[in-house]
Amino acid sequence: VHSPAIEDYLEQIHNLIEGKGYARVVDIAQNLSISQASVTNMIQKLDAEGYLVYERYRGVVLTDEGRKIGQEIARRHEVLTRLLATFGLDAETVHHDVEGMEHHISRQTLDVLTLLMEELEGNPELLKKLKRKMSRP
Amino acid sequence: VHSPAIEDYLEQIHNLIEGKGYARVVDIAQNLSISQASVTNMIQKLDAEGYLVYERYRGVVLTDEGRKIGQEIARRHEVLTRLLATFGLDAETVHHDVEGMEHHISRQTLDVLTLLMEELEGNPELLKKLKRKMSRP
Ligand SMILES: [Mn+2]
Ligand SMILES: [Mn+2]
Repeated sequence: VHSPAIEDYLEQIHNLIEGKGYARVVDIAQNLSISQASVTNMIQKLDAEGYLVYERYRGVVLTDEGRKIGQEIARRHEVLTRLLATFGLDAETVHHDVEGMEHHISRQTLDVLTLLMEELEGNPELLKKLKRKMSRP
Repeated sequence: VHSPAIEDYLEQIHNLIEGKGYARVVDIAQNLSISQASVTNMIQKLDAEGYLVYERYRGVVLTDEGRKIGQEIARRHEVLTRLLATFGLDAETVHHDVEGMEHHISRQTLDVLTLLMEELEGNPELLKKLKRKMSRP
């Protein structure tokens, strides 16, 4: 079992590689709002534990294990965000809650959340009905 | 902002007081599966920080602040549990995920989860439709 901190790193690195094609220490540090020194420190630890390989010029490359975790967290992040976004919650609240909840979602729970997200995105009447109930005090 | 550990304690104490009328160190230790020594240690800290009052004979009594937090976490726990339970997930998975997610749920997110829980509990057709989709690979 890996800690939320490790999951956040692998999620961040996964997103950077997906977006830019590479993950630099400076980008990771900026996105996680931490110092480059602590990023370098953690990367060495993740390298030692087999989640990634730190190559001098190519920067950070995820191992299969690291990529699996990064993808999984990114998937949970996406489903939670889309589910809450359908109700028009403000982005900051959604981001705060999702970043916390994503570390505690097993396969079965993710399947349920995915079903709910798909239903709400594909069923405007249901969404309207729920939103009406929401605005009433 | 209080840590998940503090929230778990206040949730546990709140539940014990609601259930038995009192919260003893031995019960808290058992429910959280930790030693009585660490429970006593934490209780002194929570007392010092104004979440509860430790009275020699009556055991632990929550302050208004402590009760507010205990009730809030218990409420999130209930909503999350009922929402996932409607899909028949096994209790152990639900408990594990809920105990993690409950510390990261703001007011707006809780309102959305409550709406979804109420809809699923009151709309058997919708639930049947979603459960059918769930069983298909
Ligand atoms: Mn995330
Ligand atoms: Mn709980």
